[in-house]
Amino acid sequence: MTAAAALGSWADKPARHILEYLERVCDTESPDFVQPEERIAVFDNDGTLWCERPGYVQAAFVIDELRERVAESATLAEQPVVQSLLAGDLASALEQGGLGAVAEVLLDSHAGLAAEAFTARVQGWLSTASHPRFGARYTDLVYQPMLELLDLLRAHDFRLFIVTGGGVEFTRALSEEAYGIRRDDVIGSAVELTFQRDDTGVHIVRTATLLGSPNEGEPKPINIQMHIGRRPILAAGNTAGDREMLEYTAGNPHASLCLVIDHDDDVREYAYAGTSATNPNAEPILDTATRHGWTVVSMRDDWTTIFPDTLNG
Amino acid sequence: MTAAAALGSWADKPARHILEYLERVCDTESPDFVQPEERIAVFDNDGTLWCERPGYVQAAFVIDELRERVAESATLAEQPVVQSLLAGDLASALEQGGLGAVAEVLLDSHAGLAAEAFTARVQGWLSTASHPRFGARYTDLVYQPMLELLDLLRAHDFRLFIVTGGGVEFTRALSEEAYGIRRDDVIGSAVELTFQRDDTGVHIVRTATLLGSPNEGEPKPINIQMHIGRRPILAAGNTAGDREMLEYTAGNPHASLCLVIDHDDDVREYAYAGTSATNPNAEPILDTATRHGWTVVSMRDDWTTIFPDTLNG
Repeated sequence: MTAAAALGSWADKPARHILEYLERVCDTESPDFVQPEERIAVFDNDGTLWCERPGYVQAAFVIDELRERVAESATLAEQPVVQSLLAGDLASALEQGGLGAVAEVLLDSHAGLAAEAFTARVQGWLSTASHPRFGARYTDLVYQPMLELLDLLRAHDFRLFIVTGGGVEFTRALSEEAYGIRRDDVIGSAVELTFQRDDTGVHIVRTATLLGSPNEGEPKPINIQMHIGRRPILAAGNTAGDREMLEYTAGNPHASLCLVIDHDDDVREYAYAGTSATNPNAEPILDTATRHGWTVVSMRDDWTTIFPDTLNG
Repeated sequence: MTAAAALGSWADKPARHILEYLERVCDTESPDFVQPEERIAVFDNDGTLWCERPGYVQAAFVIDELRERVAESATLAEQPVVQSLLAGDLASALEQGGLGAVAEVLLDSHAGLAAEAFTARVQGWLSTASHPRFGARYTDLVYQPMLELLDLLRAHDFRLFIVTGGGVEFTRALSEEAYGIRRDDVIGSAVELTFQRDDTGVHIVRTATLLGSPNEGEPKPINIQMHIGRRPILAAGNTAGDREMLEYTAGNPHASLCLVIDHDDDVREYAYAGTSATNPNAEPILDTATRHGWTVVSMRDDWTTIFPDTLNG
């Protein structure tokens, strides 16, 4: 297959743009040649690699898990914050308890679970849960054009990382199946873990305490350096929470490529602005992209397909 | 080359032991077969992959860096803690300022440096500094038998990680050249990083504050889960600071291999007990190894060569 055919779900113009960039950095004769070990590509997950509407997939998981726990605990069921969450009314929950109380209720659902047990719960849930509008498994609602891009980058000796505001262990539970991205190549928000030794051996166990800040905004490039130890040359995102990661990538002395996915297709997916999940006053990411000359990808105009054929067929 | 020939610097008995283990977990017909993505191997660095005597290599680096800074700052030169450190008298420095003050002086040497600039300083120093006894570059004082083991594991589709109590950025600056281990596959102690935006772009910059605890003891398996997201099946270490990482590996439901390097060769290298760097009361690692039936590797009896031929020749 030719490189152009590899981007079969992309319109000509963005496909040519990506291919020209890859030729610039991968051709040993090019003045912009980049050694393979420096070819680091980082991808936001929610809204960049898979569908994040009507709500984050991880939120649907945690609410379902909370529902199971409530069935076993009258004390939990009586809490107004819990009742609002289960009714899908996040606004009331926040009014009743503030962000701290809401986060505590949600994180507490998995505190005390060993890492492996948590992964098994996520994978069990993903195997049965389905999207409210598309009726498909969430792991089938990945963007076909981005899967093609990941494959093309791998073929060009890029190292691919997910850098998500979502939970690192949640995302790892699906990254290999959904994207072929290794668990150790996922960077995300995390809870503190503890070491426990008992009769059955030693275990690494989840707590209900967030480790540092959520992985959005400035923490994204900080955690990229912390985890990867190199500045990326390619980054893709879709909200203001990805801005700092994109800026960090754009500042690479090597030639870089920054992609911003514009959700402008409410027929085939959703249409919404790329606002930040944690900072409502942040500049819209499309404005930042225009200012810096980053590549904006219109889902409506630039992607001939949104989801894999297995879903459409 | 046969698998046995691949371990050319190992005595027959440990080589056979390692090869039998690899056959158990890599042969698809074996009841103990392990899928490639689960073949995670973790290695301590100081004293396991390279020489850690008479002092940690990183300590030699930081003292040399401190010496350069003192030449530029009379205020710094006057501090008793600094004078003791430069005289090589850590005991007096600790008496004068306590561990906190000593750590602050040392970490402060690189605070404010961008990540890339720190890496360049480490690599510059490594290219000229030499070991006081062997007169060789530190990156030449890696253990030849361990290099052979790393290569053999790679040939068996293992994923190799360094899990060091040393600084993560320090170790990354040499991991690719010395071991062929990717920078993003190094886990270590870290300082907090900050995001800075100025006229020249955005930068990730070092602070003088340690991030969490040093990566020794319980933090090793915690950070393995945090960074890799999987329990290893193979681990190697040489001190009580590696105990928890070895226990975590030994508790893998898959067949596991735990190696403990015994420094018992004061002719060709050094002879010393594997005590913990952070907990002097910890059980000696050889006792732990015996109790659990882990494989102890005698440097004197089990390694026909210590350092690569380039050094001996």
